[in-house]
Amino acid sequence: MNGLMQDWPLLCHRIMEHAARQHGQRRVVSRAENGSLKVTNYSEIYSRSLRVSQSLLREGVVHGDRIATIAWSTSDHLECWYGIAGTGAVYHPINPRLFADQIAFIINDAKDRIVFVDASFISLAESLQERIPLVERFVVFTDGEKLPESGLRGAIAYEEWLAEGGVDYIWPNFEENLAAGLAYTSGTTGQPKGVLYSHRSIVLMSLAANSPDMYGFGASDVVLQVVPMFHANGWTWPFSAPMAGAGLILPGAQMDGASLSQLMTEEKVTCTGGVPTVWQGVLSHLAEEGQGLTALRRLYIGGSPCPRFMMEAFKRFNVEVRSAFGMTEMGPMAAIGSHVPETASLTGEPLSEMQQKQGRAPFMVEMQIYGEEDEQLPWDGSTSGRLKARGPCVARTYYGATHDLLDAKGFFDTGDIATIDQYGYIKITDRAKDLVKSGGEWISSIDLENFVTDHPEIHEAAVVGVIHPKWDERPIVVAVKKAGAIVTKEALLEFLSSRIAKWWMPDDIIFVDSLPHTSTGKLNKKLLRAEYERHLVDMPQARETLNFEADIAMMEGKTNV
Amino acid sequence: MNGLMQDWPLLCHRIMEHAARQHGQRRVVSRAENGSLKVTNYSEIYSRSLRVSQSLLREGVVHGDRIATIAWSTSDHLECWYGIAGTGAVYHPINPRLFADQIAFIINDAKDRIVFVDASFISLAESLQERIPLVERFVVFTDGEKLPESGLRGAIAYEEWLAEGGVDYIWPNFEENLAAGLAYTSGTTGQPKGVLYSHRSIVLMSLAANSPDMYGFGASDVVLQVVPMFHANGWTWPFSAPMAGAGLILPGAQMDGASLSQLMTEEKVTCTGGVPTVWQGVLSHLAEEGQGLTALRRLYIGGSPCPRFMMEAFKRFNVEVRSAFGMTEMGPMAAIGSHVPETASLTGEPLSEMQQKQGRAPFMVEMQIYGEEDEQLPWDGSTSGRLKARGPCVARTYYGATHDLLDAKGFFDTGDIATIDQYGYIKITDRAKDLVKSGGEWISSIDLENFVTDHPEIHEAAVVGVIHPKWDERPIVVAVKKAGAIVTKEALLEFLSSRIAKWWMPDDIIFVDSLPHTSTGKLNKKLLRAEYERHLVDMPQARETLNFEADIAMMEGKTNV
Repeated sequence: MNGLMQDWPLLCHRIMEHAARQHGQRRVVSRAENGSLKVTNYSEIYSRSLRVSQSLLREGVVHGDRIATIAWSTSDHLECWYGIAGTGAVYHPINPRLFADQIAFIINDAKDRIVFVDASFISLAESLQERIPLVERFVVFTDGEKLPESGLRGAIAYEEWLAEGGVDYIWPNFEENLAAGLAYTSGTTGQPKGVLYSHRSIVLMSLAANSPDMYGFGASDVVLQVVPMFHANGWTWPFSAPMAGAGLILPGAQMDGASLSQLMTEEKVTCTGGVPTVWQGVLSHLAEEGQGLTALRRLYIGGSPCPRFMMEAFKRFNVEVRSAFGMTEMGPMAAIGSHVPETASLTGEPLSEMQQKQGRAPFMVEMQIYGEEDEQLPWDGSTSGRLKARGPCVARTYYGATHDLLDAKGFFDTGDIATIDQYGYIKITDRAKDLVKSGGEWISSIDLENFVTDHPEIHEAAVVGVIHPKWDERPIVVAVKKAGAIVTKEALLEFLSSRIAKWWMPDDIIFVDSLPHTSTGKLNKKLLRAEYERHLVDMPQARETLNFEADIAMMEGKTNV
Repeated sequence: MNGLMQDWPLLCHRIMEHAARQHGQRRVVSRAENGSLKVTNYSEIYSRSLRVSQSLLREGVVHGDRIATIAWSTSDHLECWYGIAGTGAVYHPINPRLFADQIAFIINDAKDRIVFVDASFISLAESLQERIPLVERFVVFTDGEKLPESGLRGAIAYEEWLAEGGVDYIWPNFEENLAAGLAYTSGTTGQPKGVLYSHRSIVLMSLAANSPDMYGFGASDVVLQVVPMFHANGWTWPFSAPMAGAGLILPGAQMDGASLSQLMTEEKVTCTGGVPTVWQGVLSHLAEEGQGLTALRRLYIGGSPCPRFMMEAFKRFNVEVRSAFGMTEMGPMAAIGSHVPETASLTGEPLSEMQQKQGRAPFMVEMQIYGEEDEQLPWDGSTSGRLKARGPCVARTYYGATHDLLDAKGFFDTGDIATIDQYGYIKITDRAKDLVKSGGEWISSIDLENFVTDHPEIHEAAVVGVIHPKWDERPIVVAVKKAGAIVTKEALLEFLSSRIAKWWMPDDIIFVDSLPHTSTGKLNKKLLRAEYERHLVDMPQARETLNFEADIAMMEGKTNV
C-alpha cells in the first residue's frame, strides 16, 4: 500500500524556482573577466535560466544531451546549469586547468553537443576544436553582446544566443532519476571517468548539505563560492545556496588573496570554503593590510587537512573552521568536521586532532571501513581499513561503464584507507594507492609526512612507496626545505629516529626545490611515484635537486572536496 | 538517460540506523507514567525497534497493515514507530483526547490490527473494544514486565511481547512510496479523515525540517518533544531529531509547567516547541520559582500566534521565538517564522508584526494564494486569498478516498485565507470557514479578535459569523473578561469604534466565563458557531453567561502545528 502524498519529483530546477519565488531579491554577485562586479539576484537568474532552456530547445537539444561548460564561477555559468538541467539535458562542467588532451578526451567521451566557454578560454577551445568534431557550436560568455574574434565553430555570443527567449516558458516535470550533471574525475589508472548525477542525487545532496552540522546555509548567509563550479559539482553549493535563499558570491577567475578578501569584506560573506592554499593567500593579504574578517562565521577546508596555524589564524577572527571531505563520486559531500557534544569542550591537542580528521557523515551517507577479508572494522579511531560508502548520492558506476562498481552489500570503495572513531569521525590515513606496503605491513605516508614536516626547517614533504628488492616497497621522502634552512639528510633521519618505529624510517630523503601539486593544491603523488619508482633499484644514492612545474594541472585519482 | 547514482530508497528506518551508527550514545530521556525518568539512547532504541519489527512479523503483520498507538511521547512509543515502519507496516498514532466515538471510528476506518496503549489508557481501550472488532490484540506499554489487570482482548505487556526478538535481524529495503504513517484530522465537516504518509514524504519532511531556518536540529541540540507524537506526526521531530543526532527528551503525560521546566533545566534542552498555552504554564512556573532557562536557544510556537508578552518573556531568557505553521495534510510543516536579511534589523512594532505571521516556506513546500476566480494573487502582504500548497510532503487525498483533492495545477487547498508578503511570510487572516462574509465583503475574525483583546480588560475573545437576515452573515464577539474587570458591552463597542471600520463593528458582544478550546489549545469555533448560529435571528439580545467545559477534547477542522 502506497502513501497518498503528492507526486512531486526532486528536480534541480525546482531549486531555482524556489529561490526566485521566496528569495527573488537576494544578492548574487559575480566577478567578470575584466575584474568588474556584476550584481544580480535569483529572480533575474531564474528568468535568464528559462531563456537558456528555450535557446537550447531551439538548438534541438533533447533529454539526455550533454552540454559542456569551460568557465569560472559566475552567474552566467550558474544560470546555464539550471537552464540545461531544466530541459532534461545534462550540464557538464570541465576543469580548464586539465591538459588539452584530457579535455578533448572528456568532451569526446561525453559527446558534448554544445560547449559554453569563457572568452578567456577561446584560444584553448580553438586549439581543441579539430579534435572534438561532435561539438556543434561554441557559445561564448562575454561581458557584452559582442563576440570576441575567434575561429570557433558556430561561435555566438552568449547574450545574443540568449536574446530570443520569452518569459512565459515554465520548466517541465519529469522523472527525478533523469541525469542532470556530469563531472569527470581521473581514476587511479587510465583516462578520466564521468560521474553522472541525477536530479534526485543533486537535490538530496543539497538537502543534506543544508543541515546545520554540514554546510548549513540559511537565508541570512552570504556564501562565497571559492571552490570552482567545475570541481566536484562545486561542492553542491550552486544548488544548496539558492535552496536556502543564501546570498551567493561568485569570484570568477580571480582567486588571489586580495580579490577574495575584497569580496569577503565588501559582500559581508558569512560562509565559504576551499583548499588550504587559497586561504593561505587570503591570510597573507589580510596580514599585509592589517585587516580582519568581521562577517565570516564558518570556513570549510577540503582537499587536504587544514594546517594548525591556519586553524588558529581564523579562530582569532572568530571563524569556525570545519574540515570537509568528499569526492566527485560521492555527490560530492561525505563528511564535515562539526562538533558532537562530546567534542565541544575539547581544547589544545585533542581539539586539534579532532579538527585534523575529515569529519562525520550526515544522514544518507553510510560510511564503513573494511579489512582485508572484507570484514567490517570497528569504529575505535585506530583500526584502519578501506573506506566504503553507500547512499543515494554515491555513484554506482561511471559514465559509459558496462557494469556497476559496487560490492555485494552495495558499497562503493572510495580508495581511501581510514579509521573511524567512536563519534563517527573519519580520518583518512592514506589513499589505498599511497599506502606503503613494506614486507606485508602498512606504513601511512600521510603520518610519515606529518612527522617530517614537524621538523622546523622543512617546508613540505611527500612520502612515496618505491620498489624495493627485498621488502617489495619501502618509503622514501621527497622534501622542500624552508628558505635558508641548513638541515641535512642525516640530521633529518636523526630527528625522525626518535619519533617513529625503526621499520617506518625512510630508505632515502631527497631534497628538492618544489614539489608537484595537482590543480586542487594537493601533492601529486602520481607524478612522484612515476619519477621515483625505481629510485632504490637503479640509483640508490640521494639526489640533491629536482624541479617540477609548480602549476602542473592534472587532476588526481580521487578528487577530495 | 538516467543518472548513475545508487538506488537507495528514502526509508524511515534508515534514520534510526543512522542515529544508532553515528550517534548511538546520544541521550534519550522519557518520563514514565509514574513520573520517573527513563534514560536510554539511539543505540538501544535501534535494537529495541528491531525487536518490535520481529515481534510484529511473528504476529503475521505484512506490508501495509495498520498498527495503532494510543500513547504519550516516550521512547517505547518512538521505537514502536520505527519498528512498525521498518517492516513495511503503517504506524497510526491516535489522539487519546478525542471522544471515544471518534477513536472507535478512526480505528475502524483504519482497520488497525494491533493497538499499543499506555497503561493509563487501558480503561479507555476497554470501553472501546466491543466497537472495534477488527483489533486482534492490545499491547500495553508498562513500566515493567507485569501486565496490569485488564479485560482487553489478547492483552500482553510490551516487554513480554518484545522479549523474543534476536539481534541479527536487519530492516529490509523496499519502495520509498510505501505507506509508513497514518494520521487523522477532522475536516470541516463529517468524520475525521486519514492522511497517509509515505516513507519518502516523512524522510523529505525531516530533511527540510533540519535546515537552519526551519527547526535546524544538530547533534549539539537537545530537543524536547512537547508536541505529542499523536499530533500532526509530532511535527516530524521523532524523525528529524534522530536524523540530526540530537538528544531527545520525551515528556510522557506530564505537560505541566513544573514538569517541563524541570526537564528543560536538567536535560539542558536547547530547542522545543508547542502551543502557547503550554509555554504559559512554563513561564508561570519559572516566575514562581525565580528560575531562568540557560540552555534553551530556539522555541517554536504553533497552533496560534504567540502572544507578544510571551515573545518578550522568552527574549529575556535569550531564546529566539519562531512561529511554526503547518497541518497534518502538509506532512506537517508548511512555514517557520525565521528571519531573512531584510527583517533582521527590525525592532518594536514591525518586528512584532513579522513575528505574528506564520513564517515562510522551505524548499519543497510551494505555497500560493488564489482569488475567487482561482487567479494567483500577488505577494504584497495585503491581498488575501485561499492558501494552497504543493510538494512531496503534501497530501493528494485522504485515506480511503476515491479521488484526488488537488486542483488542476496540483495544489491542495489548505482551507486557510492568507496574505503573503514580499519576503514570503504567510499571514493567516482566517480559516475559510471562520471568515465572516457580510454583504459580499469579507471580515477577518482573527483581526477583529485581536482588536477586542487589545482592550486591557479583555482576557480572550472569539469572533464568529452568525446568520443575519439582511447581510447573510454578521460578526458577533464572545469574550471573557479579566478577573475584576468592569468593562461593559457599550464601553467595548466604544473602544472598537475608534479602531475599526463601521461595517466591521460586531452586531453583539457576549461576555462568558470561559471559551471552548480544542485539544490543541485553540478556540473551538465549530462549537461556538453551533451555539450562536441563530443568535441574531432568534434572540437578538445580549446573553451574559455561558459555560463550556474548558477541556473539550475535539480535534479541529485543520490541525495547525
